[in-house]
Amino acid sequence: MTDNSPAPSRRSLLAVGGAGLALGAAAAGGAVALARSDGDDMRPAAAESGTAVPFHGAHQAGIATAVQDRLHFAAFDVKTDDREEFVQLLKDWTKAAALMTQGRTVGEGAYGGLAEAPPDDTGEALGLKPSRLTLTIGFGPSLFATYGKAFGIAGRRPEALVELPKFPGDNLDRTRSGGDLCVQACADDPQVAVHAIRNLARIGFGKVAIRWSQLGFGKTSSTTPDAQTPRNLMGFKDGTRNIAGTETKRLDEHVWAGGDDWMAGGSYLVARRIRMNIETWDRTSLQEQEDLFGRDKGEGAPVGKAKERDEPFLKAMKPDAHVRLAHPDSNHGATILRRGYSFTDGTDGLGRLDAGLFFLAYQKDVRTGFIPVQRSLAAKDALNEYIQHVGSAVFAVPPGVRDGKDWWGRGLFENAADAENAENGA
Amino acid sequence: MTDNSPAPSRRSLLAVGGAGLALGAAAAGGAVALARSDGDDMRPAAAESGTAVPFHGAHQAGIATAVQDRLHFAAFDVKTDDREEFVQLLKDWTKAAALMTQGRTVGEGAYGGLAEAPPDDTGEALGLKPSRLTLTIGFGPSLFATYGKAFGIAGRRPEALVELPKFPGDNLDRTRSGGDLCVQACADDPQVAVHAIRNLARIGFGKVAIRWSQLGFGKTSSTTPDAQTPRNLMGFKDGTRNIAGTETKRLDEHVWAGGDDWMAGGSYLVARRIRMNIETWDRTSLQEQEDLFGRDKGEGAPVGKAKERDEPFLKAMKPDAHVRLAHPDSNHGATILRRGYSFTDGTDGLGRLDAGLFFLAYQKDVRTGFIPVQRSLAAKDALNEYIQHVGSAVFAVPPGVRDGKDWWGRGLFENAADAENAENGA
Repeated sequence: MTDNSPAPSRRSLLAVGGAGLALGAAAAGGAVALARSDGDDMRPAAAESGTAVPFHGAHQAGIATAVQDRLHFAAFDVKTDDREEFVQLLKDWTKAAALMTQGRTVGEGAYGGLAEAPPDDTGEALGLKPSRLTLTIGFGPSLFATYGKAFGIAGRRPEALVELPKFPGDNLDRTRSGGDLCVQACADDPQVAVHAIRNLARIGFGKVAIRWSQLGFGKTSSTTPDAQTPRNLMGFKDGTRNIAGTETKRLDEHVWAGGDDWMAGGSYLVARRIRMNIETWDRTSLQEQEDLFGRDKGEGAPVGKAKERDEPFLKAMKPDAHVRLAHPDSNHGATILRRGYSFTDGTDGLGRLDAGLFFLAYQKDVRTGFIPVQRSLAAKDALNEYIQHVGSAVFAVPPGVRDGKDWWGRGLFENAADAENAENGA
Repeated sequence: MTDNSPAPSRRSLLAVGGAGLALGAAAAGGAVALARSDGDDMRPAAAESGTAVPFHGAHQAGIATAVQDRLHFAAFDVKTDDREEFVQLLKDWTKAAALMTQGRTVGEGAYGGLAEAPPDDTGEALGLKPSRLTLTIGFGPSLFATYGKAFGIAGRRPEALVELPKFPGDNLDRTRSGGDLCVQACADDPQVAVHAIRNLARIGFGKVAIRWSQLGFGKTSSTTPDAQTPRNLMGFKDGTRNIAGTETKRLDEHVWAGGDDWMAGGSYLVARRIRMNIETWDRTSLQEQEDLFGRDKGEGAPVGKAKERDEPFLKAMKPDAHVRLAHPDSNHGATILRRGYSFTDGTDGLGRLDAGLFFLAYQKDVRTGFIPVQRSLAAKDALNEYIQHVGSAVFAVPPGVRDGKDWWGRGLFENAADAENAENGA
C-alpha cells in the first residue's frame, strides 16, 4: 500500500528563471479612481516564488534574502541540561533544515520508512514547491543565563546580546516574550513554513518545547532594491530606506556582526509583537494619518515630496512624525534591517481584531541599532496612541552553516567547554 | 500631499490567461527518494490567482468557486434592533463587497476622499491584485431567534436552518461558536482576505461586531475537477470525491437549496473548528495512520487501490476507517461540498501547536448532509483519538446577488414585514 518508489525531483524545473508577469501601467477603463491597484504588484512571479534558497553560506539565509511572503516564527525553551543531547539536536536540526529548505522531506520522508514506525516527516508539504523557504536560528540571552554552565558556554555570551530595556508604553505579555532559542521560517507558501517549524519542534521533542509562536501573513518590508514597499495594516508604506540584500556595504556596516569570535558573520535579531488599535486608527482622518507617519498614504512620499523614494526633508514633518523619529539622521545613524510581517490572530474578548505588526529587525549590535531607535520612538512617536508593544525577544543569530559537515551553533559549542574552563580558571 | 490622481486599472492586464508553469515529471538527480515534491503542484498559476471572480450571479461566489489558497472567516453578532439600519448595512456591505472582489477600494478609496475625514478604505490592499477574492454571507439561527420579531423575519426562518445537535466528543468553545451572521472571505492573497473582513467590520461599526474569526492558511479541499487534492495537517489527502464546481448536476442535487422561497439557489454552511492533537499524531506509526484514514499516505489511494481517484472498496478498510465512515455509501448517499482550511493559531499553554482543520461544508440541507455524516464519524471514527471539535456554527447562505440593484438578503427582507404580519395574523 505504501509507495516507496523514488519521486522525481522537480528542483531543476523550478529553478527556471522567472519570466514573471509582464505588468505595465498601460490600460485603463471605467471608474479608475476606484481601482485598488495603483502600482506594480510586489509579489514575486510564480517561478521565482517556487525556487529553493541555498542553505549553506557565510551568513544564514533569511536575513538578507529577499523577503518572502509568509512567516512562522517560533521561540523555544530548552528542556535538557545535557550538553551532548543539545548539541545533537542542533546537528539534527541543521540536517533537517538543509533538506526542507531545498524542498525535501526530513529523514526517510513522509511514507518511505518502516510501516511500524512514525514517519520521519509529517507530510503536509508533500507536493509543494521549496517556496524559497529559509530557516534561521537564534540564541536568546536566557540560553546563556540558564544553561551557560551546563552547556559550557557561559563565558561565550556576546556582549552585544543584551536584554532590551523596558521602553515607555511597553505592555509585554511574558508568554509571548523571550525564549532560549528561536527559529524564523519564511516562505512564499505558509504551509511550507508551518511544516518546517512543526518538524523541527517534533525533532526537538523532550529537548526543547515551543514557548510561543507567531504566524505572519503579509510582509511589511522589502529587502529587494527598488521593489514596491509593502503596506502595513495601517495602510501605509513604512521602512522605504530598508537595507537591500544586495547592498553589501550597508550590510557589513549595519547588519553583520564583526570581530573574530563565534558570532562573526552573524547578526542580532529583535522581535517585537506590536498590536495595532485598528478600530481607532480607522476612525482617524486621512490628514492626521499622513501627519503621524510623515508620508502621504497613496504614494508613500515623505511630506512635501512627490515619490516614495525621494529623500525626506525631516524638518518639513511634525516633530513627532514616525518617519522623522525613525530616520537614521535622528538617531546618530542607527540603521536596522527590517523583516516584519503583518499578523491577525482572530479577535480579542472585546470583538476587536487582534492584529498588527510582528516586527523583526536584524542589526550588528542592538545597543547601537534597535535600542536607540526605539527609545526615540517610545518617547515621542505620535503613532504610540495607536500601537502597543505586547511581545519582545532578542537573539544572537550565528553565522551561516558553511557546508554539509558544519552545523547551527558549531562555533559556539565547539571547544566551548575548554574555553569555559580556561576562563573559569582565569 | 495627497495624490488624488486616478490610478490606471490593471484588471485588463491581470485577466490575461494563465500560461502557468510548465511542470512535468521529468528531471531527476541525487537522492530523489527524499524529494518532497511527488506530483504536480496544486497552486494556480500567478496570472490565474490574480484575477477577479465575478460577484454577481445566481449563486454566491465562494461556494462552487475553485477553492482559493487563503481564508479569513468572521462570525458577527448583531448590535441593533432597527430593521432599517440593518437592511442599510446589508446594502452597504453588498456594495463594498462588489467593489473589493473586483480589486477596487471601498467608497472613495484609501486616500481619495476629504483629508479631514477618515478614508473610506483602510488601504492595506492598495497595489495588490483582486486575488480571486470571494465574499459569501450567511445568516445564523440566532438572527431569527433573537431579531426575528424586530426585523420582521421570524416566520421566514428556513426549516433546514437547524441548530446542530451535540455530537459525542464535542468540546465546543462558546466564544468560537455561533454567530448571527457570517462572512467567508477567500482569496489567493491573505492580505486581500483580511482587508475585506476588516473593511466590512468597519462599515458595520455599531450595527454588528465580530464574535469570532478564523484565519486559514492552507486549503484542504479542491473543487476543481482532477486537481491534486491538497493535504491536511495530518499529511493526508482527504475528500478526494469532493463536488467540483463544474459538476452542475451534483451541485443541484447536493448543494443548492431548492424550493421557491428566498433561499432558492442558496445553500447551508456548516463551520467546525477541528483541533488536531498534532504531537500525538506525529508519534503514530505510518501503518496506523494509513489504517485510520483508509488510504496510503503517499499517493492517497484507498486501501488496496493504486491511485487516489480509484473507487474505494470500503469493505477492504477497517470498519472505523475515516474514508469508509465518511463515504456517501455509508450515509445513505449524504454528500457535502467541502471547502476547509488548515489553521495554526500559535501554541496553547502547554507548548502544543493550536492547529487543525477549519472545516467548511456547503449542502442543500444540513439534516441530510453534515448531520448524518458527523453522527457516523463522531460515534465510530478511529481518528477521534487525534481530533476534537472545538468550534461550531451553521448558517443559511442566501442565493447570489443578481445585479447592481440587488443586495445580500434582499429576498429575506423585502416584503418580509408583510409576510410576517400575514403569518402573525393567521
